[in-house]
Amino acid sequence: MTRSPVWSTIATTLEAEIARGHYRAGDKLPTEAELSSRFGVNRHTVRRALADLAERGLVHARRGSGVFVRMAPMDYPLGERVRFHQNVRATGRLPDKRILRLETRPADTTEAQALALAPGDPVLVHEGLSLAGGTPVAHFISLFPQSRLPGLAEALRETASVTEALRRAGVADYTRVFTRLTAEPASATQALHLNLREGAPLLRSVGLNLDPEGQPVEQGHTWFAGDRVALTVSPEHDA
Amino acid sequence: MTRSPVWSTIATTLEAEIARGHYRAGDKLPTEAELSSRFGVNRHTVRRALADLAERGLVHARRGSGVFVRMAPMDYPLGERVRFHQNVRATGRLPDKRILRLETRPADTTEAQALALAPGDPVLVHEGLSLAGGTPVAHFISLFPQSRLPGLAEALRETASVTEALRRAGVADYTRVFTRLTAEPASATQALHLNLREGAPLLRSVGLNLDPEGQPVEQGHTWFAGDRVALTVSPEHDA
Repeated sequence: MTRSPVWSTIATTLEAEIARGHYRAGDKLPTEAELSSRFGVNRHTVRRALADLAERGLVHARRGSGVFVRMAPMDYPLGERVRFHQNVRATGRLPDKRILRLETRPADTTEAQALALAPGDPVLVHEGLSLAGGTPVAHFISLFPQSRLPGLAEALRETASVTEALRRAGVADYTRVFTRLTAEPASATQALHLNLREGAPLLRSVGLNLDPEGQPVEQGHTWFAGDRVALTVSPEHDA
Repeated sequence: MTRSPVWSTIATTLEAEIARGHYRAGDKLPTEAELSSRFGVNRHTVRRALADLAERGLVHARRGSGVFVRMAPMDYPLGERVRFHQNVRATGRLPDKRILRLETRPADTTEAQALALAPGDPVLVHEGLSLAGGTPVAHFISLFPQSRLPGLAEALRETASVTEALRRAGVADYTRVFTRLTAEPASATQALHLNLREGAPLLRSVGLNLDPEGQPVEQGHTWFAGDRVALTVSPEHDA
């Protein structure tokens, strides 16, 4: 009778636990010492099992910090209507957000220009994390023209969906007029929020959404974790 | 009479030399020791001048490697027709390329599917660096269906423009049907080619171009230096 090598059995066990959601994307696996103790093997055997999972793209090691569960990048269409909730649901995950900041302050010159306001007019600043299936996938800072959107702050506290919050503030529909994309290193704070190492590549998007009358309703800055989200552009589908 | 501080004079001199193209985007400035010797000052004064240039976004220091000239990110429209040469010229820079590899080999299953070929059919692999005004801004690997594009390899050697090379191979026009964008860390080789540190954020684009009959003519993989290129998407302009 042929027996599988011990490392292979350990890899299969960990793989099944990842598949069952015991360890989720972005989670750190137990240390080599903990896994050695759990499976009653030496560290060399544990390392072989982890190397196997890494080769198959299920986990990745970060020097000095441990082994983390990888998430298959989520496709995120950048069309005329950019909807986080809809995009996440389309991948079979539950969308959610965590609010880091919701405050009103005067617009500076650049912000006023983007939102068709006068400098000093109130802007609502909405900063937070976007989650897909419990995993943080992006850090965002959105600016809204406060006086054109009565009740928006309360709505943003009550619902995780920006589309739904804007609807409650009287905006039935909005379209993306412009998106600008660059790659940036994660700051220390972003790394902490997104479960990444400092300097890890983020896909930065700056976009402007207009209401059906052509008035700006949102200027959004989003930093997507580069290993978790792929933005897709299909010009023909927007025509 | 008020005299400018020495560090300020040094900063102004270096700024003028950057503006004149003596030091170009991506170039490493001389070391602190070399600048101390050139200007006849101590290193503290040189450091103050470099800090001033860094504060104003003209240069950036990379720990352990030196001080480098920054390039203002170039806007790069991702529309129905994606043309590197045209996009670079629109920013007032000269487009160019450096070929790293031009070879024909059999298509693997994934490549064959993308290019509407049978596995094993010949693909032309075109790998190189894209330059804007002499500065490398992207690393690319493009795949072409060899048998549908007679003479393409020679044309790609003769002209830096893919559009012109495809024209010579009989493709009068082509349109972008799909682009997928992620952020990735620069590999050691890419860092070397693009004058970046290893792990620096790259904007990775995978795109498919079709000829007017809907036949794939190119599958392009491009890694843009995150600090030099911003991809822009304007759905309304594609309609």
